[in-house]
Amino acid sequence: MTAALADELAGLLGPEAVRAGAAVALLDPGWNPHNLDAGLVVSPATTAEVSRLLAFCHERGIGVVPQGGRTGLVGGAVSLPGEVVLSLTRMAAVAAIDPVGRTAVVEAGVTLERLQQAAAEHGLDPAIDTAARGSATIGGMIATCAGGIRAFRHGVMRHRVLGLEAVLADGTVIDDMTQVLKTSSGYDLKQLLVGSEGTLGVVTRAVIRLEPLPGPRATALIGLPGAAAALAVVRHFLGADGPSLQAAEIMSGGYATGSAAALGVDGGALGLGAPVHLIVEVSGSIEAETREALEDGLATVWESAGIQGGVVAATLKQRETIWLIREASDAIGRAYGLELWYDVSVPPARIDAYVAEAGRCLAAVDPALELHFIGHLADGNLHVMAARRERPEHVPHEAIEAALYEGLREAGGAFSAEHGVGLDKREALARHGDPGKLAAMRAVKAALDPRGILNPGKVLPPA
Amino acid sequence: MTAALADELAGLLGPEAVRAGAAVALLDPGWNPHNLDAGLVVSPATTAEVSRLLAFCHERGIGVVPQGGRTGLVGGAVSLPGEVVLSLTRMAAVAAIDPVGRTAVVEAGVTLERLQQAAAEHGLDPAIDTAARGSATIGGMIATCAGGIRAFRHGVMRHRVLGLEAVLADGTVIDDMTQVLKTSSGYDLKQLLVGSEGTLGVVTRAVIRLEPLPGPRATALIGLPGAAAALAVVRHFLGADGPSLQAAEIMSGGYATGSAAALGVDGGALGLGAPVHLIVEVSGSIEAETREALEDGLATVWESAGIQGGVVAATLKQRETIWLIREASDAIGRAYGLELWYDVSVPPARIDAYVAEAGRCLAAVDPALELHFIGHLADGNLHVMAARRERPEHVPHEAIEAALYEGLREAGGAFSAEHGVGLDKREALARHGDPGKLAAMRAVKAALDPRGILNPGKVLPPA
Repeated sequence: MTAALADELAGLLGPEAVRAGAAVALLDPGWNPHNLDAGLVVSPATTAEVSRLLAFCHERGIGVVPQGGRTGLVGGAVSLPGEVVLSLTRMAAVAAIDPVGRTAVVEAGVTLERLQQAAAEHGLDPAIDTAARGSATIGGMIATCAGGIRAFRHGVMRHRVLGLEAVLADGTVIDDMTQVLKTSSGYDLKQLLVGSEGTLGVVTRAVIRLEPLPGPRATALIGLPGAAAALAVVRHFLGADGPSLQAAEIMSGGYATGSAAALGVDGGALGLGAPVHLIVEVSGSIEAETREALEDGLATVWESAGIQGGVVAATLKQRETIWLIREASDAIGRAYGLELWYDVSVPPARIDAYVAEAGRCLAAVDPALELHFIGHLADGNLHVMAARRERPEHVPHEAIEAALYEGLREAGGAFSAEHGVGLDKREALARHGDPGKLAAMRAVKAALDPRGILNPGKVLPPA
Repeated sequence: MTAALADELAGLLGPEAVRAGAAVALLDPGWNPHNLDAGLVVSPATTAEVSRLLAFCHERGIGVVPQGGRTGLVGGAVSLPGEVVLSLTRMAAVAAIDPVGRTAVVEAGVTLERLQQAAAEHGLDPAIDTAARGSATIGGMIATCAGGIRAFRHGVMRHRVLGLEAVLADGTVIDDMTQVLKTSSGYDLKQLLVGSEGTLGVVTRAVIRLEPLPGPRATALIGLPGAAAALAVVRHFLGADGPSLQAAEIMSGGYATGSAAALGVDGGALGLGAPVHLIVEVSGSIEAETREALEDGLATVWESAGIQGGVVAATLKQRETIWLIREASDAIGRAYGLELWYDVSVPPARIDAYVAEAGRCLAAVDPALELHFIGHLADGNLHVMAARRERPEHVPHEAIEAALYEGLREAGGAFSAEHGVGLDKREALARHGDPGKLAAMRAVKAALDPRGILNPGKVLPPA
């Protein structure tokens, strides 16, 4: 059946657009081993071809799974036999950069790194960054409303998108490639498509807002009694004239020491051992002044914020080590038999209370469960790790989720901050989302994709 | 019929919630004389009452026109006999301000000014401003995706909204009162509601992001050869360390001299007479340093940008005079028999070309038509005035619109930047909008408001 469909699609879009069987087995499935289970990958070269493909699949009722860099963490790109994987890899051009208006016009399949490089030639930057930059595509980042460490200053992907072109389930093309910040000319459907994870339409092109490339950086790692104290440091740097805060990454003490140990880094030299650690990174115009401004700023708040110690990176190598502890978040898992990661948003003022309460609830589930976290402090996005030295026979997924998600929405937070819902968090959406919002989501899905061909089974929980 | 309906609604929500007949005639209709033509105004006190009202009207098929401060410019709040005006004035509380997370939880009927005052008590500010601040409500500003002079730095209303509560046509409440920047947990319906002008749901509460209140300001008015030169000045101040750019307002030479003359201001003392004039306003920590930084910055770019002259305001009175020329945009109209205003977005790099082309096209319609403009330069939002000394017998509205809107979308601009579509720009949406987007808008409207009771006739052009 897949082979026959592959032939038909090759007839529709040309043989170079279609891979099936062994040709699919050669491809990297990305971060979820089931991404390519459909066994059929179609790669259109133009928006018109995407439209033709979707009209065909809509007519036949064939499920279509749009894929970017396949770096998603929640199963949002998993495909099944009988479905068609729609890969945007052949639509990967940076079509134009406007250095005056500070915008880039790109095709959806361009990687973040490629856009960063193209923008840097003009002294500009998309102002959003993630560790997956080499693979993650702009289309995929739009579909999942990607965030990252710079969101507190420059917003999440939603705020970087000025214009969008997308194809709806029946092949209708929405051309809303605005290059301006202000448009109030009908429903902003592009904002509905951002974060809809390929279930409402397929992003084909976008206009991305650019910012000046940050100048030389200075980086510190400091120890603090808690998140509230760390926030006081952040607020100081956000309010100060001069160098601008570029990163404010928090790590629980247990994460920092555990990660350093797993990586063979000397934690003592970095002052590890406090209840929480904060990476503060600022950028300015001149390297020496930037570093001095960081040192002066830390000195100013040292006592009032209760800073317990720390280092300002003296060398590039030391800066890299600091970031390694934060970013190599798989290392610490080696010491555990069970290691589960969650991605929550918590109003910044409530982080200490949230962490304490979640820790208590986790312990009530199983006293051997440990809670560690890393996160983007200034926007309240925590990546929480529930870990256990020995893997238990039965993993109490639902109880752990309840411990971490219960009351979060009422407190103004979110059970998924930047990873999306995909397949893995549909149950969480059903349990911890708002019923009114869910009902409206179903109505919108039925209106825009009445046959349910777009990314079937994703985001919306089974009714 | 209206009287009988008023009685029924008084039974449903209490007599204090309902005004009809003479009690409506006492109310200020706001900026459109037809806003209260329904002759029936219902003011619920809670979200539950809004829900009950909508469920009732949905059941009966009664049109509901949501109203905030009635300051809209495109007829978006016009009502007809037989409809119900839903006023949010009784839901006007600033429920909470979180100075750590920098958020405000407000009811929809609160005015911008009231929120500004409440935030200022914590040294914070909603970072959006408009001349209608005393009347315009947060709910109305969300519904129209308001913009204003600070949008280039802090975004439009869409970017200020972190959380939203809204009631759908059938009374379903969407509770999405997130207080965090990052949430990727299902379709972001709040972003769909922002800018939908009351046709998809009624905003009842919101979480608004706050920013530090700007410090002391310094203001300059300079003359330049064109928008490209003015942009060079803007880019300098956007890129500079130190004081931050708070306003970059452009005025065509004709507007500036005409407005000054109409207001009795001595334009010569302000250096008026250049092709365009730019108001540059920066804020910093210390007044004297801020002014000095503005003077230094202007000196740095004086030659390269081709600045032709100007003044840095030496007194508060001079600053007020500069802003008066810009903001009292009704004054210049006294010299004209016909004065039509339009609200377009143009990619900044294309402003000079747009203005030249639009001027040529207007002259082709009628050589006596003059083109003047004011605008928010950094985001490309121009308020364009097509004016004629003598009012013609027949006003060629359609031809003037074509002169100003033709090709704008293809160039990445928008025919409505911050005023919305309402009643007045539905034809423009039909003519100059994208057909695919319009089709999807109709599908979404039918899904969320199947009986078409919400703000009937607005935004969507007649099919």
